[in-house]
Amino acid sequence: MSYDAETMERLFNPASVVVVGASRKTGPGSFNIVENLVNYGYKGRLYAVNPKASEIFGVPCFPRAADLPEVPDLAIITVPREMVPQVVRDCCERGIKSFILVPQGMAEADETGAEIQAELMAVLRAHGARALGPNTLGTVNVFDGFISSFMPITRRPALPTGLVCQTGLFLATDLGPSTGLGKGIDIGNQADVGFPEALRHLADDPRVKVVAIHMEGLRPGEGRLFLDVLRETVKKKPVLVYKTGRSAAGAEAASSHSGSLAGSYEVYEAALESAGAVLLRDTDDMDDSVKAFLRLAPLRGRRIAVVTASGGGGIMAADAIGEYGLELARLTPETLKALADIYPDWMEPGNPLDVWPAAIGKLYPEVFVKCFDLVADDPNVDGIICVAGAFEREGFNLPEFLA
Amino acid sequence: MSYDAETMERLFNPASVVVVGASRKTGPGSFNIVENLVNYGYKGRLYAVNPKASEIFGVPCFPRAADLPEVPDLAIITVPREMVPQVVRDCCERGIKSFILVPQGMAEADETGAEIQAELMAVLRAHGARALGPNTLGTVNVFDGFISSFMPITRRPALPTGLVCQTGLFLATDLGPSTGLGKGIDIGNQADVGFPEALRHLADDPRVKVVAIHMEGLRPGEGRLFLDVLRETVKKKPVLVYKTGRSAAGAEAASSHSGSLAGSYEVYEAALESAGAVLLRDTDDMDDSVKAFLRLAPLRGRRIAVVTASGGGGIMAADAIGEYGLELARLTPETLKALADIYPDWMEPGNPLDVWPAAIGKLYPEVFVKCFDLVADDPNVDGIICVAGAFEREGFNLPEFLA
Repeated sequence: MSYDAETMERLFNPASVVVVGASRKTGPGSFNIVENLVNYGYKGRLYAVNPKASEIFGVPCFPRAADLPEVPDLAIITVPREMVPQVVRDCCERGIKSFILVPQGMAEADETGAEIQAELMAVLRAHGARALGPNTLGTVNVFDGFISSFMPITRRPALPTGLVCQTGLFLATDLGPSTGLGKGIDIGNQADVGFPEALRHLADDPRVKVVAIHMEGLRPGEGRLFLDVLRETVKKKPVLVYKTGRSAAGAEAASSHSGSLAGSYEVYEAALESAGAVLLRDTDDMDDSVKAFLRLAPLRGRRIAVVTASGGGGIMAADAIGEYGLELARLTPETLKALADIYPDWMEPGNPLDVWPAAIGKLYPEVFVKCFDLVADDPNVDGIICVAGAFEREGFNLPEFLA
Repeated sequence: MSYDAETMERLFNPASVVVVGASRKTGPGSFNIVENLVNYGYKGRLYAVNPKASEIFGVPCFPRAADLPEVPDLAIITVPREMVPQVVRDCCERGIKSFILVPQGMAEADETGAEIQAELMAVLRAHGARALGPNTLGTVNVFDGFISSFMPITRRPALPTGLVCQTGLFLATDLGPSTGLGKGIDIGNQADVGFPEALRHLADDPRVKVVAIHMEGLRPGEGRLFLDVLRETVKKKPVLVYKTGRSAAGAEAASSHSGSLAGSYEVYEAALESAGAVLLRDTDDMDDSVKAFLRLAPLRGRRIAVVTASGGGGIMAADAIGEYGLELARLTPETLKALADIYPDWMEPGNPLDVWPAAIGKLYPEVFVKCFDLVADDPNVDGIICVAGAFEREGFNLPEFLA
């Protein structure tokens, strides 16, 4: 299917939304999408469909989609699985073209679910409509102030990070980029919208500087398209991929969660890396890598200096340098000479540079910054790892230096 | 050297202490051991030696060790390196038998430092005295309320963890077991007291339930003794070892930090594991492992169930089970049948067990605990990984179940 920019925009940033199957419950455990949208500060026009209410949290509520006073950009569907095809048909007949389908129990579950999903897809195709899900928490758009989540999500400041995931875990918890998000999308069981479209949308949004992906598996036959989009995206911004379902046990579990064929991890790994993605190992790795790509410019080369307040910490950093294919920079004689003037006679400075002996009896932050500046000016140094407590000094700009 | 329990006890829990070279500075950057001891709440008798003061923070101060009104259990020495042999001699002549030597710049630094250290060792031997360090932060004893650190350390509740390290980083920061400590010792450059004695002391303290070790390197010729102590210790409590200086770069750095010969990591790894230690990869690993050994009983076997609030999280856990040599438990037909009664028709419960579909429209914590209990009673299950927000329920005791 060709890329549909308008659908993706409606999924993330609808001017008007209807929640079909909206509940009147409130408080912990109520999983009320209307309440969450209101609390999140959604500024668009909001409607609910529920035959038992005329208003929910101040939002006008109608018995059927046919009764809606306008055609909303997006319908969020949250009804039992067997009702989904009919409810979507009603919305389509009212003219709605974009859907977020929350319900579980579709093709990923059993034969009946697969039949329901087939019927649902036929309805969508007949009306030229598109859908995210089923089995999805939907989207989070911190930039523009929209969520579709049934889990309550507190609005935090937007960060230029985009996330595509296959579980709401990343959107509704502190997992993933704890630094924060700009836009996130849970593609669920990918009945319609899949990874290629989601990535393309984030690639095209200039507010997104780094894209992180949590993937259980692509749809059969979709690999080439996804890799093409990936190759185009990495020309503009880094793409980090955390692929789960790596072990046999994990792959089997993925099949019953999102219905994905996890496939051989080695094949995914080779294909993703050759297309320019950075492979991640776990959720901590995602968080650290997103932070690094957001805040640091790329290294000029592999020669790393360690400036440390702890000799032991310097050794740990040197170990990591050895283990991750980097090398310890050899400081120039000029740098070593300038450093020697700061150090006591008994210590010959080197790399790792343990600042502590130079700082004994002096102001430690001053000495640390002096040492850092000397190392930073060394032409043999492509990057610096600092092991130190955080401190600030005017005019000190690590990302600027590393650029 | 045979194990000297009395010296080790004095290093950790002296009834009386003199700080030689005590400073009168206070506040950030003053690194004042007397101030730190007073703030930490040390209850023993405390003295200072400094020719320029008669009192420091309410602690009586004397010009020379000879003037001390009693023979303290321990002297903490913090003077420039060239003064150390003479100052230790003065203390030995006053009858002091145990020392913590803070100064850097000894054998780990240069030829002069090696000469000073040789002279120092001759003084100690001539008087039958023992020393921890040089180049050490000394000891932390949370159980009994003693520190020798020049970095200020806030007293936290004691945890049954013992730590032997070769950098003060682990004692003075939140690195290492962030759960807290009972006793910690920085063995510095190991001029006298080394890893075997430190480990033996922690092995013998019944308040210590888990021992973590950060090691740059053993002294030449000490491997057999250390492994013997390790083998004895693991009969009583788990010993976790984080060995640094693994890469060539790290090993070289270790030599100039603590004067250790890091040696081949593979040799260390094989020897430590065969003696029963658990090898750690990094500081996070230390923290996680200490927590696990403190709080969880050993597994009965390798068959692990995953009870999860997130399908995606279950797959991540299944991946980890595959990667760490464990296996996904096959739940018995009885358990699966009992679970099926909780689940909607469309979902066949399995392992990982995604609780979410069973909890839709119900009280999630109740359903989670019900699922957990059923899985916990399954004879095919040796351990459970939970992926869930924290919640409490009366009568629910995970460590008890796992025992």
